[in-house]
Amino acid sequence: MSARTFQELLIDELKDVYDAERRLVRSLPKLVKAAHDPALRSALENHLTETEGHVDRLERCFEQLGENPARKTCKAMEGILEECDSMLKEADDGRLRDALIIAAAQKVEHYEIATYGTLRDWSRQLGHSDIASTCQTTLDEEERADKLLTVLSAELNTQAARTHTEM
Amino acid sequence: MSARTFQELLIDELKDVYDAERRLVRSLPKLVKAAHDPALRSALENHLTETEGHVDRLERCFEQLGENPARKTCKAMEGILEECDSMLKEADDGRLRDALIIAAAQKVEHYEIATYGTLRDWSRQLGHSDIASTCQTTLDEEERADKLLTVLSAELNTQAARTHTEM
Repeated sequence: MSARTFQELLIDELKDVYDAERRLVRSLPKLVKAAHDPALRSALENHLTETEGHVDRLERCFEQLGENPARKTCKAMEGILEECDSMLKEADDGRLRDALIIAAAQKVEHYEIATYGTLRDWSRQLGHSDIASTCQTTLDEEERADKLLTVLSAELNTQAARTHTEM
Repeated sequence: MSARTFQELLIDELKDVYDAERRLVRSLPKLVKAAHDPALRSALENHLTETEGHVDRLERCFEQLGENPARKTCKAMEGILEECDSMLKEADDGRLRDALIIAAAQKVEHYEIATYGTLRDWSRQLGHSDIASTCQTTLDEEERADKLLTVLSAELNTQAARTHTEM
Protein backbone atom coordinates (compact mmCIF):
# COMPACT_ATOMS: atom_id res chain seq x y z
CA MET A 1 0.00 0.00 0.00
CA SER A 2 1.58 3.28 -1.03
CA ALA A 3 0.71 6.85 -0.10
CA ARG A 4 -1.56 8.50 -2.66
CA THR A 5 -1.33 12.15 -3.63
CA PHE A 6 -4.21 14.62 -3.34
CA GLN A 7 -4.07 15.04 -7.13
CA GLU A 8 -4.60 11.28 -7.57
CA LEU A 9 -7.62 11.41 -5.25
CA LEU A 10 -9.05 14.22 -7.39
CA ILE A 11 -8.61 12.16 -10.58
CA ASP A 12 -10.20 9.11 -8.89
CA GLU A 13 -13.21 11.19 -7.86
CA LEU A 14 -13.54 12.57 -11.42
CA LYS A 15 -13.53 8.97 -12.74
CA ASP A 16 -16.25 8.05 -10.22
CA VAL A 17 -18.58 10.89 -11.22
CA TYR A 18 -17.77 10.38 -14.92
CA ASP A 19 -19.04 6.81 -14.53
CA ALA A 20 -22.09 8.09 -12.59
CA GLU A 21 -23.00 10.63 -15.30
CA ARG A 22 -22.53 8.08 -18.12
CA ARG A 23 -24.83 5.64 -16.27
CA LEU A 24 -27.38 8.42 -15.89
CA VAL A 25 -27.30 9.25 -19.61
CA ARG A 26 -28.22 5.59 -20.23
CA SER A 27 -30.92 5.43 -17.51
CA LEU A 28 -32.75 8.75 -17.90
CA PRO A 29 -34.50 7.79 -21.18
CA LYS A 30 -36.03 4.77 -19.35
CA LEU A 31 -37.31 7.09 -16.62
CA VAL A 32 -38.73 9.51 -19.22
CA LYS A 33 -40.61 6.55 -20.76
CA ALA A 34 -41.88 5.34 -17.36
CA ALA A 35 -43.04 8.80 -16.19
CA HIS A 36 -46.78 9.50 -16.27
CA ASP A 37 -46.95 13.26 -15.71
CA PRO A 38 -45.99 15.44 -18.72
CA ALA A 39 -44.23 18.07 -16.55
CA LEU A 40 -42.10 15.36 -14.90
CA ARG A 41 -41.32 13.83 -18.29
CA SER A 42 -40.23 17.19 -19.61
CA ALA A 43 -38.06 17.90 -16.51
CA LEU A 44 -36.32 14.52 -16.97
CA GLU A 45 -35.79 15.13 -20.70
CA ASN A 46 -34.31 18.52 -19.93
CA HIS A 47 -32.03 17.01 -17.30
CA LEU A 48 -30.88 14.37 -19.80
CA THR A 49 -29.63 17.17 -22.07
CA GLU A 50 -27.91 18.79 -19.07
CA THR A 51 -26.36 15.44 -18.06
CA GLU A 52 -24.90 15.00 -21.56
CA GLY A 53 -23.34 18.43 -21.05
CA HIS A 54 -21.92 17.29 -17.68
CA VAL A 55 -20.22 14.36 -19.42
CA ASP A 56 -18.63 16.76 -21.95
CA ARG A 57 -17.46 19.07 -19.16
CA LEU A 58 -15.86 16.17 -17.28
CA GLU A 59 -14.02 15.15 -20.46
CA ARG A 60 -12.61 18.67 -20.67
CA CYS A 61 -11.51 18.44 -16.99
CA PHE A 62 -9.61 15.20 -17.71
CA GLU A 63 -8.00 16.89 -20.70
CA GLN A 64 -6.91 19.89 -18.59
CA LEU A 65 -5.25 17.47 -16.17
CA GLY A 66 -3.50 15.64 -19.03
CA GLU A 67 -5.55 12.47 -18.37
CA ASN A 68 -7.67 10.32 -20.65
CA PRO A 69 -11.34 10.23 -19.56
CA ALA A 70 -11.77 6.95 -17.69
CA ARG A 71 -14.61 5.43 -15.67
CA LYS A 72 -14.35 3.92 -12.20
CA THR A 73 -17.55 2.05 -11.27
CA CYS A 74 -19.68 4.35 -9.10
CA LYS A 75 -21.34 1.75 -6.87
CA ALA A 76 -23.61 4.32 -5.25
CA MET A 77 -25.12 5.47 -8.57
CA GLU A 78 -25.30 1.87 -9.77
CA GLY A 79 -27.22 1.02 -6.56
CA ILE A 80 -29.65 3.97 -6.79
CA LEU A 81 -30.47 3.20 -10.45
CA GLU A 82 -30.80 -0.58 -9.89
CA GLU A 83 -33.18 -0.06 -6.95
CA CYS A 84 -35.27 2.40 -8.96
CA ASP A 85 -35.46 -0.02 -11.88
CA SER A 86 -36.62 -2.93 -9.74
CA MET A 87 -39.18 -0.80 -7.83
CA LEU A 88 -40.62 0.57 -11.11
CA LYS A 89 -41.26 -2.98 -12.34
CA GLU A 90 -43.57 -3.50 -9.36
CA ALA A 91 -45.52 -0.24 -9.74
CA ASP A 92 -48.29 -0.56 -12.30
CA ASP A 93 -49.90 2.78 -11.53
CA GLY A 94 -48.49 5.87 -13.30
CA ARG A 95 -48.83 8.14 -10.29
CA LEU A 96 -46.95 5.73 -8.03
CA ARG A 97 -44.27 5.40 -10.70
CA ASP A 98 -43.93 9.20 -10.71
CA ALA A 99 -43.49 9.22 -6.90
CA LEU A 100 -40.78 6.53 -7.23
CA ILE A 101 -39.03 8.33 -10.09
CA ILE A 102 -38.89 11.61 -8.16
CA ALA A 103 -37.55 9.83 -5.05
CA ALA A 104 -34.80 8.12 -7.08
CA ALA A 105 -33.97 11.25 -9.08
CA GLN A 106 -33.55 13.27 -5.87
CA LYS A 107 -31.14 10.61 -4.52
CA VAL A 108 -29.22 10.92 -7.80
CA GLU A 109 -29.14 14.73 -7.57
CA HIS A 110 -28.00 14.69 -3.94
CA TYR A 111 -25.24 12.18 -4.72
CA GLU A 112 -24.03 14.51 -7.44
CA ILE A 113 -24.40 17.66 -5.29
CA ALA A 114 -22.12 16.08 -2.64
CA THR A 115 -19.62 14.87 -5.25
CA TYR A 116 -19.35 18.09 -7.28
CA GLY A 117 -19.03 20.04 -4.02
CA THR A 118 -16.02 17.89 -3.12
CA LEU A 119 -14.56 18.14 -6.65
CA ARG A 120 -14.91 21.94 -6.65
CA ASP A 121 -13.19 22.26 -3.25
CA TRP A 122 -10.38 19.80 -4.03
CA SER A 123 -9.71 21.39 -7.46
CA ARG A 124 -9.57 24.86 -5.91
CA GLN A 125 -7.18 23.71 -3.17
CA LEU A 126 -4.92 22.10 -5.77
CA GLY A 127 -4.83 25.29 -7.88
CA HIS A 128 -7.08 24.08 -10.73
CA SER A 129 -9.39 27.07 -10.71
CA ASP A 130 -10.86 26.31 -14.18
CA ILE A 131 -11.92 22.84 -13.05
CA ALA A 132 -13.33 24.27 -9.81
CA SER A 133 -15.41 26.72 -11.81
CA THR A 134 -16.62 24.00 -14.23
CA CYS A 135 -17.70 21.85 -11.25
CA GLN A 136 -19.55 24.83 -9.76
CA THR A 137 -21.51 25.30 -13.01
CA THR A 138 -22.58 21.64 -12.99
CA LEU A 139 -23.33 21.81 -9.25
CA ASP A 140 -25.67 24.78 -9.86
CA GLU A 141 -27.56 22.74 -12.48
CA GLU A 142 -27.85 19.72 -10.14
CA GLU A 143 -29.20 21.94 -7.36
CA ARG A 144 -31.75 23.54 -9.71
CA ALA A 145 -32.83 20.06 -10.92
CA ASP A 146 -33.31 18.92 -7.31
CA LYS A 147 -35.40 22.01 -6.46
CA LEU A 148 -37.60 21.49 -9.53
CA LEU A 149 -38.20 17.87 -8.47
CA THR A 150 -39.27 19.09 -5.01
CA VAL A 151 -41.79 21.46 -6.61
CA LEU A 152 -43.14 18.72 -8.89
CA SER A 153 -43.34 16.19 -6.04
CA ALA A 154 -45.60 18.46 -3.96
CA GLU A 155 -48.27 18.21 -6.65
CA LEU A 156 -47.66 14.65 -7.82
CA ASN A 157 -47.44 13.03 -4.37
CA THR A 158 -50.82 14.54 -3.51
CA GLN A 159 -52.28 12.87 -6.59
CA ALA A 160 -50.55 9.56 -5.73
CA ALA A 161 -51.93 9.66 -2.16
CA ARG A 162 -55.43 10.55 -3.39
CA THR A 163 -55.63 7.50 -5.65
CA HIS A 164 -53.93 5.18 -3.14
CA THR A 165 -55.53 5.45 0.26
CA GLU A 166 -56.44 1.76 0.42
CA MET A 167 -54.41 1.30 3.59
CA MET B 1 -46.34 -8.15 -11.34
CA SER B 2 -49.00 -6.58 -9.14
CA ALA B 3 -49.85 -2.95 -8.42
CA ARG B 4 -48.27 -1.64 -5.23
CA THR B 5 -49.92 0.82 -2.87
CA PHE B 6 -48.37 4.13 -1.83
CA GLN B 7 -48.31 2.84 1.78
CA GLU B 8 -46.22 -0.16 0.66
CA LEU B 9 -43.77 2.16 -1.09
CA LEU B 10 -43.44 4.13 2.15
CA ILE B 11 -42.69 0.95 4.13
CA ASP B 12 -40.13 -0.15 1.48
CA GLU B 13 -38.38 3.22 1.70
CA LEU B 14 -38.32 2.97 5.52
CA LYS B 15 -36.70 -0.49 5.21
CA ASP B 16 -34.10 0.95 2.81
CA VAL B 17 -33.08 3.78 5.12
CA TYR B 18 -33.25 1.48 8.18
CA ASP B 19 -30.64 -0.71 6.46
CA ALA B 20 -28.61 2.41 5.53
CA GLU B 21 -28.58 3.71 9.13
CA ARG B 22 -27.69 0.27 10.56
CA ARG B 23 -24.75 0.02 8.12
CA LEU B 24 -23.65 3.48 9.17
CA VAL B 25 -23.71 2.57 12.88
CA ARG B 26 -21.29 -0.27 11.99
CA SER B 27 -19.05 1.86 9.73
CA LEU B 28 -18.73 5.14 11.63
CA PRO B 29 -16.43 3.72 14.37
CA LYS B 30 -13.97 2.68 11.60
CA LEU B 31 -14.04 6.23 10.21
CA VAL B 32 -13.50 7.68 13.71
CA LYS B 33 -10.42 5.43 14.05
CA ALA B 34 -9.09 6.40 10.60
CA ALA B 35 -9.58 10.17 11.10
CA HIS B 36 -6.48 12.25 11.81
CA ASP B 37 -7.95 15.57 12.90
CA PRO B 38 -9.43 15.68 16.44
CA ALA B 39 -12.32 17.98 15.41
CA LEU B 40 -13.29 15.61 12.59
CA ARG B 41 -13.04 12.62 14.93
CA SER B 42 -15.29 14.35 17.43
CA ALA B 43 -17.84 15.31 14.72
CA LEU B 44 -17.98 11.68 13.55
CA GLU B 45 -18.35 10.38 17.13
CA ASN B 46 -21.17 12.83 17.71
CA HIS B 47 -22.87 11.76 14.47
CA LEU B 48 -22.57 8.10 15.52
CA THR B 49 -24.65 8.90 18.62
CA GLU B 50 -27.17 10.75 16.43
CA THR B 51 -27.27 7.82 13.96
CA GLU B 52 -28.08 5.40 16.80
CA GLY B 53 -30.97 7.74 17.60
CA HIS B 54 -32.10 7.63 13.95
CA VAL B 55 -32.26 3.83 14.14
CA ASP B 56 -34.45 4.05 17.27
CA ARG B 57 -36.73 6.60 15.61
CA LEU B 58 -37.15 4.38 12.54
CA GLU B 59 -38.09 1.46 14.81
CA ARG B 60 -40.81 3.65 16.33
CA CYS B 61 -42.05 4.54 12.82
CA PHE B 62 -42.36 0.83 11.92
CA GLU B 63 -44.25 0.27 15.18
CA GLN B 64 -46.67 3.12 14.44
CA LEU B 65 -47.39 1.49 11.07
CA GLY B 66 -47.96 -1.91 12.70
CA GLU B 67 -44.85 -3.32 10.99
CA ASN B 68 -41.82 -5.15 12.35
CA PRO B 69 -38.58 -3.25 11.69
CA ALA B 70 -36.98 -4.93 8.68
CA ARG B 71 -33.99 -4.15 6.48
CA LYS B 72 -33.90 -4.00 2.71
CA THR B 73 -30.33 -3.80 1.38
CA CYS B 74 -29.56 -0.16 0.59
CA LYS B 75 -27.20 -0.64 -2.35
CA ALA B 76 -26.36 3.07 -2.52
CA MET B 77 -25.17 3.24 1.10
CA GLU B 78 -23.40 -0.11 0.69
CA GLY B 79 -21.60 1.35 -2.37
CA ILE B 80 -20.60 4.63 -0.70
CA LEU B 81 -19.20 2.82 2.35
CA GLU B 82 -17.39 0.14 0.31
CA GLU B 83 -15.73 2.76 -1.90
CA CYS B 84 -14.66 4.79 1.14
CA ASP B 85 -13.21 1.68 2.79
CA SER B 86 -11.16 0.72 -0.25
CA MET B 87 -9.89 4.30 -0.84
CA LEU B 88 -8.85 4.63 2.83
CA LYS B 89 -6.69 1.52 2.53
CA GLU B 90 -4.66 3.28 -0.16
CA ALA B 91 -4.21 6.58 1.72
CA ASP B 92 -1.33 6.39 4.20
CA ASP B 93 -1.34 10.08 5.02
CA GLY B 94 -3.71 11.25 7.78
CA ARG B 95 -4.63 14.49 6.03
CA LEU B 96 -5.56 12.71 2.81
CA ARG B 97 -7.59 10.21 4.83
CA ASP B 98 -9.48 13.14 6.38
CA ALA B 99 -10.25 14.57 2.91
CA LEU B 100 -11.56 11.14 1.82
CA ILE B 101 -13.61 10.66 5.00
CA ILE B 102 -15.28 14.07 4.61
CA ALA B 103 -16.07 13.38 0.93
CA ALA B 104 -17.65 10.01 1.77
CA ALA B 105 -19.50 11.35 4.82
CA GLN B 106 -21.02 14.15 2.71
CA LYS B 107 -22.24 11.57 0.17
CA VAL B 108 -23.79 9.65 3.07
CA GLU B 109 -25.47 12.79 4.45
CA HIS B 110 -26.82 13.81 1.04
CA TYR B 111 -28.20 10.31 0.43
CA GLU B 112 -30.02 10.55 3.75
CA ILE B 113 -31.19 14.14 3.15
CA ALA B 114 -32.85 13.03 -0.11
CA THR B 115 -34.36 9.93 1.50
CA TYR B 116 -35.74 11.56 4.65
CA GLY B 117 -37.16 14.37 2.51
CA THR B 118 -39.08 11.77 0.49
CA LEU B 119 -40.16 9.88 3.64
CA ARG B 120 -41.41 13.10 5.26
CA ASP B 121 -43.43 14.06 2.16
CA TRP B 122 -44.89 10.59 1.56
CA SER B 123 -45.83 10.17 5.27
CA ARG B 124 -47.53 13.55 5.30
CA GLN B 125 -49.46 12.77 2.11
CA LEU B 126 -50.60 9.46 3.59
CA GLY B 127 -51.80 11.12 6.81
CA HIS B 128 -49.00 9.87 9.09
CA SER B 129 -48.16 13.26 10.55
CA ASP B 130 -46.20 11.79 13.51
CA ILE B 131 -43.90 9.91 11.14
CA ALA B 132 -43.52 13.00 8.95
CA SER B 133 -42.47 15.01 11.98
CA THR B 134 -40.00 12.30 13.14
CA CYS B 135 -38.44 12.25 9.65
CA GLN B 136 -38.13 16.06 9.72
CA THR B 137 -36.25 15.88 13.05
CA THR B 138 -33.75 13.39 11.61
CA LEU B 139 -33.50 15.41 8.37
CA ASP B 140 -32.56 18.51 10.39
CA GLU B 141 -29.76 16.55 12.08
CA GLU B 142 -28.45 15.22 8.74
CA GLU B 143 -28.43 18.74 7.28
CA ARG B 144 -26.55 20.08 10.32
CA ALA B 145 -24.02 17.23 10.05
CA ASP B 146 -23.46 18.02 6.36
CA LYS B 147 -22.92 21.73 7.10
CA LEU B 148 -20.42 20.94 9.87
CA LEU B 149 -18.48 18.71 7.44
CA THR B 150 -18.35 21.60 4.94
CA VAL B 151 -16.90 23.89 7.62
CA LEU B 152 -14.32 21.26 8.64
CA SER B 153 -13.37 20.50 5.04
CA ALA B 154 -12.47 24.15 4.33
CA GLU B 155 -9.68 23.93 6.91
CA LEU B 156 -8.64 20.30 6.42
CA ASN B 157 -8.49 20.35 2.61
CA THR B 158 -6.14 23.34 2.79
CA GLN B 159 -3.83 21.29 5.01
CA ALA B 160 -4.10 18.26 2.69
CA ALA B 161 -3.24 20.41 -0.36
CA ARG B 162 -0.30 22.04 1.44
CA THR B 163 1.33 18.70 2.21
CA HIS B 164 0.53 17.19 -1.18
CA THR B 165 1.51 19.50 -3.97
CA GLU B 166 3.90 17.00 -5.59
CA MET B 167 1.97 17.15 -8.86
